[in-house]
Formats: sequence, C-alpha cells, structure tokens
Amino acid sequence: MPLKALALNATLKTSESKDASSTDRMIDLIDKAMSAHGVETGVLRLADFNVKPGVTSDEGAGDDWPDIRAKVLGADILVMATPIWLGQPSSVCKRALERMDAFLEETDDQGRMVSYGRVAAVAVVGNEDGAHHVSAELFQALNDVGFTIPANAVAYWVGEAMGSTNFVDLDKVPKVVTKAVDMLARNTAHLAGLLKAKQYPGEGS
Amino acid sequence: MPLKALALNATLKTSESKDASSTDRMIDLIDKAMSAHGVETGVLRLADFNVKPGVTSDEGAGDDWPDIRAKVLGADILVMATPIWLGQPSSVCKRALERMDAFLEETDDQGRMVSYGRVAAVAVVGNEDGAHHVSAELFQALNDVGFTIPANAVAYWVGEAMGSTNFVDLDKVPKVVTKAVDMLARNTAHLAGLLKAKQYPGEGS
Amino acid sequence: MPLKALALNATLKTSESKDASSTDRMIDLIDKAMSAHGVETGVLRLADFNVKPGVTSDEGAGDDWPDIRAKVLGADILVMATPIWLGQPSSVCKRALERMDAFLEETDDQGRMVSYGRVAAVAVVGNEDGAHHVSAELFQALNDVGFTIPANAVAYWVGEAMGSTNFVDLDKVPKVVTKAVDMLARNTAHLAGLLKAKQYPGEGS
Amino acid sequence: MPLKALALNATLKTSESKDASSTDRMIDLIDKAMSAHGVETGVLRLADFNVKPGVTSDEGAGDDWPDIRAKVLGADILVMATPIWLGQPSSVCKRALERMDAFLEETDDQGRMVSYGRVAAVAVVGNEDGAHHVSAELFQALNDVGFTIPANAVAYWVGEAMGSTNFVDLDKVPKVVTKAVDMLARNTAHLAGLLKAKQYPGEGS
Repeated sequence: MPLKALALNATLKTSESKDASSTDRMIDLIDKAMSAHGVETGVLRLADFNVKPGVTSDEGAGDDWPDIRAKVLGADILVMATPIWLGQPSSVCKRALERMDAFLEETDDQGRMVSYGRVAAVAVVGNEDGAHHVSAELFQALNDVGFTIPANAVAYWVGEAMGSTNFVDLDKVPKVVTKAVDMLARNTAHLAGLLKAKQYPGEGS
Repeated sequence: MPLKALALNATLKTSESKDASSTDRMIDLIDKAMSAHGVETGVLRLADFNVKPGVTSDEGAGDDWPDIRAKVLGADILVMATPIWLGQPSSVCKRALERMDAFLEETDDQGRMVSYGRVAAVAVVGNEDGAHHVSAELFQALNDVGFTIPANAVAYWVGEAMGSTNFVDLDKVPKVVTKAVDMLARNTAHLAGLLKAKQYPGEGS
Repeated sequence: MPLKALALNATLKTSESKDASSTDRMIDLIDKAMSAHGVETGVLRLADFNVKPGVTSDEGAGDDWPDIRAKVLGADILVMATPIWLGQPSSVCKRALERMDAFLEETDDQGRMVSYGRVAAVAVVGNEDGAHHVSAELFQALNDVGFTIPANAVAYWVGEAMGSTNFVDLDKVPKVVTKAVDMLARNTAHLAGLLKAKQYPGEGS
Repeated sequence: MPLKALALNATLKTSESKDASSTDRMIDLIDKAMSAHGVETGVLRLADFNVKPGVTSDEGAGDDWPDIRAKVLGADILVMATPIWLGQPSSVCKRALERMDAFLEETDDQGRMVSYGRVAAVAVVGNEDGAHHVSAELFQALNDVGFTIPANAVAYWVGEAMGSTNFVDLDKVPKVVTKAVDMLARNTAHLAGLLKAKQYPGEGS
C-alpha cells in the first residue's frame, strides 16, 4: 500500500480569492517530489473550512475540523504549510495546531497518541524573514502532539529583508529551494515508510 | 484628559461559554491596577466578534475588525491578553495581530504609523509553560506595528510543568503575580503619559 | 551492536561547582530510562571544556570541540540538555549548536550531512517557564543540522510562574516527568534503531 | 547633558579577525544616525572580552563583565547587535543577556531595577532569515531585565532564503535599511530623552 500525504494550506485566503497562493506553489513542488517516491498526495485549504476555535476534536454544530482531522489521521505524512505574517505562522495555521492539542488525550491503552507513527514536514513562504521561527514553532507543536520530524523537514522561501516579492511571482524556483524540497520529500517518505512498517512501542514494552 | 486602556481578551471561548476565562481574571487585575493610576479601562473579548482573516484594516462584509481597530486606536494603551496553547499565543490573538499588520502602511506624512505614541503591555495565562515565548512573540509583533513597550510589560501566570490548574481556579492570586501586575500598570501608565504629552518626531525632524 | 547515546549538559556551571546541576538530574533520569532499552549512555558537561566561538568544526589551538564533535558523531542519539535562562536556552547550549552549523557543509557524495541517521532528544529544566520555547529552538536547530526528532522528544520540568525551586531540590520526581522521560527514551531508542538499520537515501536515489 | 548610547557587538569574531564584521557595519549606520540626534555613541565587541558564564554581576577572577556592565549602566541607550546563526541570536549575545539576568535582583528601595529608565534597540544581520525571531527573543529578554523598547526598535538585514551574501559585502546599503535605521535612531533618542527627564515611578507611588 502506498504512503499517503496530506498538506494543509494555512494561507489566509480562500480558494475563491483571485490571488494565487504562494503557499500552494510550495505545496505543489513538495507534492511532485513526494509523488516521485510513490507517495499519494492531497491538499486542503484550511481557509475554505469553518475550523472553530477550541482544543477538542469536535467543537459542535458547523465545525469542519472532524472531517479534516479524519484526513490528517488517514495519512502517513502531514505537510503543514503556512505563509509568514509578522515573522510568525498564520492564525489559520495556529488554529489547526490548537485543534490537534486534543491528540494529547487521545491515546491507546499503551499511551500512544492517535497521531503516533505519522511524520510531519513543514513548508513556509513569505515576502521576507521568518521561516526558521515558523519551523521552530511548528516542529515543537507537531512534535508535542505526536508527530515525528525527519531530518531537514522544512522547505521555505523568503525574499531579502523587507522585500515584497511573492514566491508565486518568481519566474523560476531557485535551485536551493528545489534541493530543499527534494531532500524533504526523500527524507519524509523514507521515515514514514520505516514507522509505518514498525510503529513506536507503547508503555510497558 | 485621562489615559485610556483597551484590553483585547484572546481566549478561544466566547462570552456565552459557561467556563470562566482565566485571561479575564488577569485582565481584571490589570484594569484595577491601572485604574489606581487614573487610567480608564475597557475590554473586548475577540471570540465574540467576527474578525475575518486578512492583513488589511477592512476585510469587507461582516468584518468586525474595523470597529475593534477604532477602539484600539482610540486608546493610549493596548493590553494584549492571551491564553497559552501548545506553548504559544492563541489563534485568536494571532488573528488580531495580523490585522494590525496593516498599520505598517498606514503612516502620516512624516512616516509615523497610526499606532505611534501608543504603549502595549501583555498578559498571559496558561496551565503550564509558555509565557516568556508568548511575550516574546507579542512584543516583537506589537513593536513591528508601532507600539512602544514599557519596562517589565508582561504579567503572567502558569502552573508547574504539565499541570492542569487554571488561573481562574486559584484561591488566591500569588503575590508575585500581584507585584508584576502593579509594576506593569505603573510603568505602562507612566510611559503612555510621557508619549501622549510628547509624540515621536517624524521623518525629517 | 547496542545503540549509543550522548548527552550534552549545557549548564553554565563547571563540574567543580559545589552546586548540583538540575540538568544533570534530568539527564540521569533519561540515561536510566534509555539503559532499560539497551542503550549505552554517556554525558559531557560542556562548561568543563573550551568550546571556542565559531561555526567551523575546528577553531584551532585550544579548541575542545573537535573531540566533542567526534563523540556526537560516534553516538546514534544526541540528548541536548539545557537549563532555561530568561526563558531561553543557555549560551553554552547555543555555542554547541553553532558549532554543529558546520554539518551543513559536511555532506557525503549523495548530499547527506555527517549527522544523518542520528536522532536527537531534548531535556530542559528551569525554576520556571520556558521549556516549550527551548524545545522549539532546539528542535529547529538540530533538525536544520541533520538530526531526526522522534515523537514527544522533550522531557522537561519547570516550577510555577516566577518560582525559585530547582529541579535538583525536589524531594520526588513528579510522575508526569517520569512518564515523559520514559516516553522520550522509548521513542528515541526505537527510532534510532530503525534509522541505524536503514539510513536515509541520498540524492539521486 | 547629551544622551549616551552603547552598542554591544555580539559577533563570534574577535577584532583580530581579518574578516570585517557585518554587525559592525549595521552598528556604524545606527551610530551615525544617532549622532545626528546628538547622541554620544560607543561600541564594545563582546568577543574581545572574557565574559564568563553565569547569572551574577561578577563571576570572579578574570571576568570582564563587571566593566562592560558599568558601561551598559553608564549609557541611556543599549543597542544589542547580533549576527544570526541557525536562525537565532549568537551564543555571545545570549551570554551577555544571561549576565543581565542579575538586574532582576538589583533593585532600589522602590523595586526598580538598576536598568530602569534605559532604552534598548536591536540590530540584526545575517546571510538569510531569522531577524524577526532574534528581535523577539531580544525584546523579551531585554524587557524582562528592565529596558524599555521604543516603537520600531529593530534594524536588520538578511538576504534571500538560503543565501550566502554578507551585509558587509553589499555595495550599497538598501534604502529600506537606511529608513529603518533612521526610524530606530529617531525613536530611541526621543524615548531615552523622555525617560531620562522623567524616570519610572517606584512601588508605592
């Protein structure tokens, strides 16, 4: 059975927006690179859904998170993709992480969260500065809620300090980005395969 | 004319929630301390409003931000108050900061943002760990969008590592918290007074 | 062949100090838990060595880093252990991370850093607040320089806000800490075993 | 009496190094801009001194911090200037911040730290990404130890993602950097003047 990856696009814009999403462009690159390793990919744009504020897995009427959560747990790989605003992850990204806080209590009888065995990678785009900080916050939050982080698990692009160019408007993807994307895809697929074949042991083992 | 303070409560819960807000308790302490210095105070709970995703000052139909923005700019002091989730500020807090990103372009003819001359302080509560990081992120974001940060501008409470006690459920407010709140109020009122009397000079001065 | 772990203790105090190191106590707990999984453990206290400032693997005469580096690369698991100061990792910890920046250029002919295949975990202690931020910064830095991060890869203890109790002075280790340490050891040993048996593929594979 | 500023250059290189310091170039720009506002400036390169690890104001024989500390407290403005390594402040920068942790206990009879009334600004340079995070960490640490942060208190330059150009090697300083430097100098001098004329009130006032 092939590995499955799900990318969550945390842009502030809905799909109806006329502006192309830089975050989408980075996700496309990652998806293509993962496909080359036999990974099945999928994307959800979080802004298209009503992800209610809260820290449980179901916040009641109108909450779209339960469906998204099912897709996250139905995949072996999570790609958390976010634009940078004020040097930080988007509020839409933070909202999704908060909802995964519930995983902390959702453990099997050996103390393993529902997310265990899954691998997470991070994609970050911005006009300028902030990618390392975003990956730091995301690695920590995703690791806290049970995800495993492969070597070099971030692909990012940002322009020069105080720049205003969007990744989606670059004529060509810089070689360093392509290299980082390939590395991310290769490492993520490898590690997801290892963990799928041999899940973490539980308490008492 | 007395100084005015506005606190934005970034809890994930609306006012309709039956659970008391720990963030509200901290805001109350700060408001009382500020009142003692003659500051007029007010609070808005962000989760009660429809703050649309985006980075402009008005995201169109149904957006409650323009009214909140007017209140922020109508005050001399902003108290950004947030719970900690996953060691980080809430998504509701991040949403409000993103909307203030628009201040970067909203400058007078001498290059000063609309927010200039205003002072910001930070309040943080959580079951456990994360207050320093939250204040770091908030200081940076608020400073980037034009606010001035007085000495010791954060009041916080968190429990012991991996604890589950809420601030709102503590029988007594710890003395160290009261001391920090008093310091914050004293310094914030002092600095806001100085800047109100003598605004930052603009470009060319 | 058994797995090997190396812990780097980034306390500001040398071993000659009369004060016991809280960081050491946490490392001891982790080492015991790892030993139960057949892992051979070792500890170096960074403050006992002359780790010169710089970002190369050898900063010349008197530099103790080359020996420490050899031990890091001689192990399958790195436990980066640091106290919290001002809500952040210690300067001694940051110094060691800077020296590992050199790994970025130290790649094999398939583009894999010398550190690839190694797993990193994090231990954090402090009187109060800061553990999540420290783990965020360490996860990001260690991941950037090639380490893989297993699920729930941090063990920490901090006291209540603005507290002054040291971890080394607690009569008993709190149960939540023991549980986190066990989880860290179990997951780290498992993942290090998987990667030792099957290294990441390189470029072109 | 004119305002005094002290810049601490936290590059990893000593003055004996043949390589020019990008951090120094940014400090020079800031110093020139501050001079235009009548501020007397000075610079210390931390790597030239033996700043011993620790969190007290004097760590004994051979410790150069007491002299540096006297100069910090002899100035009205502190410019903390650091390169970025791994997306974070340098270890040399962190070391100086740790030593200022001692200010927390060094209060007058009205509870004001020795640093009160002083204003801090931040300068950051790097080949790529990390400036916002560095300013966040520095604002928080400096604010915790008593410094006041003026509006837009950071000047930075970083290149495009994964770039390798040094600020010191740029033919021309980008206009956006000059603008940020001027704003920083103007705001810092203004606020330092206000606080020098009217210090924060103490406890009981």
